[in-house]
Amino acid sequence: MEKISISTGKQSELLDITGELTAFLSRNADKGWTNGYICVFCPHTTCGVTLNEGYDPDVRRDICDFLASKIPQDWGFLHSEGNSDAHIKASIMGSSCLVPVENGRILLGKWQVAYLCEFDGPRLRNLHLSFVRSE
Amino acid sequence: MEKISISTGKQSELLDITGELTAFLSRNADKGWTNGYICVFCPHTTCGVTLNEGYDPDVRRDICDFLASKIPQDWGFLHSEGNSDAHIKASIMGSSCLVPVENGRILLGKWQVAYLCEFDGPRLRNLHLSFVRSE
Amino acid sequence: MEKISISTGKQSELLDITGELTAFLSRNADKGWTNGYICVFCPHTTCGVTLNEGYDPDVRRDICDFLASKIPQDWGFLHSEGNSDAHIKASIMGSSCLVPVENGRILLGKWQVAYLCEFDGPRLRNLHLSFVRSE
Repeated sequence: MEKISISTGKQSELLDITGELTAFLSRNADKGWTNGYICVFCPHTTCGVTLNEGYDPDVRRDICDFLASKIPQDWGFLHSEGNSDAHIKASIMGSSCLVPVENGRILLGKWQVAYLCEFDGPRLRNLHLSFVRSE
Repeated sequence: MEKISISTGKQSELLDITGELTAFLSRNADKGWTNGYICVFCPHTTCGVTLNEGYDPDVRRDICDFLASKIPQDWGFLHSEGNSDAHIKASIMGSSCLVPVENGRILLGKWQVAYLCEFDGPRLRNLHLSFVRSE
Repeated sequence: MEKISISTGKQSELLDITGELTAFLSRNADKGWTNGYICVFCPHTTCGVTLNEGYDPDVRRDICDFLASKIPQDWGFLHSEGNSDAHIKASIMGSSCLVPVENGRILLGKWQVAYLCEFDGPRLRNLHLSFVRSE
């Protein structure tokens, strides 16, 4: 399992990490990873990962703004750290995603990129990457 | 990775794709896929996949109607294409799901089926299917 | 695929199942499961699984309370069983999660635990556990 670090720059944002996944494949070009999935695992509980459109930056902004509006920090949560909204958003997005690899190359949809979803930043975040073979 | 196509018929609907997964296993009956998971991957960003109840059609209608009500198209999104609601719903449902296979057969719960979740249809959608072995 | 059973105690609660996953690894210590993922699969449609903070019990309470408030049972659902709210919450959390294993040990983040998310309890629930190798 390879660990990579990502610096997030805002309290809430979606960061395109697809380039990191391509680099991960390149670093391991000698492994014979022909067909399978890169499993992107997020070991944090106030950020998550998802796949969505990468072309228009308004899409990722809309996702963040909508979640911020519907899951406000001051909803009346018990958790004394004050970031329960971020914990909820993290579980909604999910802690891992599978990115298909075919013939040694990432096979995402035309508009699809992989996102780290920061909900309690800015911070230095880690992701664990590994390759799972498929048939 | 095998590609299948599904025609969706409405702007928003959940379509049972379990039969497609059974057919995928049948087409590959000679591969020795005894135990593992069918990974269903959705390469689109305005539809997703999920597992939920298949018995009462009201359940899938309730899921769609509730999401439509809480994530309305006219919320005030920036994205000029006007389908940010569909992008958000897609990330909430997720872009992939794992369907267990035991002794060569799909092992879903009694009421469980696999759904393609269309949020910006009707369209022709693609899904990528593959098999991941487990122990 | 190994089946485990969990008794839930409330209508809605998140139950820490990380100990069950450690026990699953221990029971299979002779299998050479060095690097990969425990795939936790939930065969039910009114409960799900997620990873989130395990340290402060208020976090899991906040998640349940927030979802109960935003997805109320009496929203006006069609499904006659009256538990469409639970079906929706289950799909939002997801029916499976991947828990990384490195050098034969579970590798979760510092605050991360695995949760069974009960939304229509109390009940006896089942989970299917298996190991998927990664590189």
